[in-house]
Amino acid sequence: METVHYRPIGIISSPFKENTGIPRQSAGARDIKGTIEIFDEFLEGLTDLDDFSHIVVIFHLHRVKTHSLKACPPWDGKEHGVFATRSPYRPNPVGVSVVRLERIERNILQISEIDMADGTPVLDIKPYIPDLNPTENVRIGWLSDNVEGMNKSKSGDR
Amino acid sequence: METVHYRPIGIISSPFKENTGIPRQSAGARDIKGTIEIFDEFLEGLTDLDDFSHIVVIFHLHRVKTHSLKACPPWDGKEHGVFATRSPYRPNPVGVSVVRLERIERNILQISEIDMADGTPVLDIKPYIPDLNPTENVRIGWLSDNVEGMNKSKSGDR
Repeated sequence: METVHYRPIGIISSPFKENTGIPRQSAGARDIKGTIEIFDEFLEGLTDLDDFSHIVVIFHLHRVKTHSLKACPPWDGKEHGVFATRSPYRPNPVGVSVVRLERIERNILQISEIDMADGTPVLDIKPYIPDLNPTENVRIGWLSDNVEGMNKSKSGDR
Repeated sequence: METVHYRPIGIISSPFKENTGIPRQSAGARDIKGTIEIFDEFLEGLTDLDDFSHIVVIFHLHRVKTHSLKACPPWDGKEHGVFATRSPYRPNPVGVSVVRLERIERNILQISEIDMADGTPVLDIKPYIPDLNPTENVRIGWLSDNVEGMNKSKSGDR
């Protein structure tokens, strides 16, 4: 199939300047604040976004240069298929995080509860709509015994 | 910033062969079934995924050839910034949907509750983990009065 090309619409500034200490998921990053700078040409697309408390950020894991089809979360110690994990070492290193939108000042989004590295290119932003999430009969496989470990852990890999 | 390149890991087969009648979001597609064929080279990455009831599918909206920074959902009738909507006509036409994983047969994922067009390239699959979603103090802006309309509507645009 054809390769897909995306042009970043913005860039994230975060406290995570190095590849260590990044929370594994935004749920483990309650007090972490940062910004998304949306490039001027896309400014009009932000209209009405400030009425949402949370946004879905789709981003490129730009520091990831390799991938593996198996991943072994250190807080779990067992190997799983990469698509059954949130490992950043994926065939296509694309990240999806729900973050809190504190406020918007022109083209700068002040966000919190973030888990992205400084300099991360943003590909898309969507409103977070809880109604789109399934809530009944959800099974989370090998993570059933481990969600707490995931939320508490920090990574050295983004 | 540099353009980002992704190579599809699989392809979706769905009942939506034409650009009409596609549910706007998977929440409006309870009984719709389809498959994801994962290309053989990525097969190993599926290990342990079958223990999850739902997966997050990141896909390329391959039928979308234009974009607009403003979107006007027909069931709402008002214009909003595209990043405050789920319109497919985005600067980077990347979709994110949570779908039910019925079962996996080798490299074929049987899925339901889907809202993707037939032939959609898949970029990534992640396990769906409800704990990553915020549940408190969520505001959904202009959608507050309209979530039901969104779930019931069908689109002619994917």
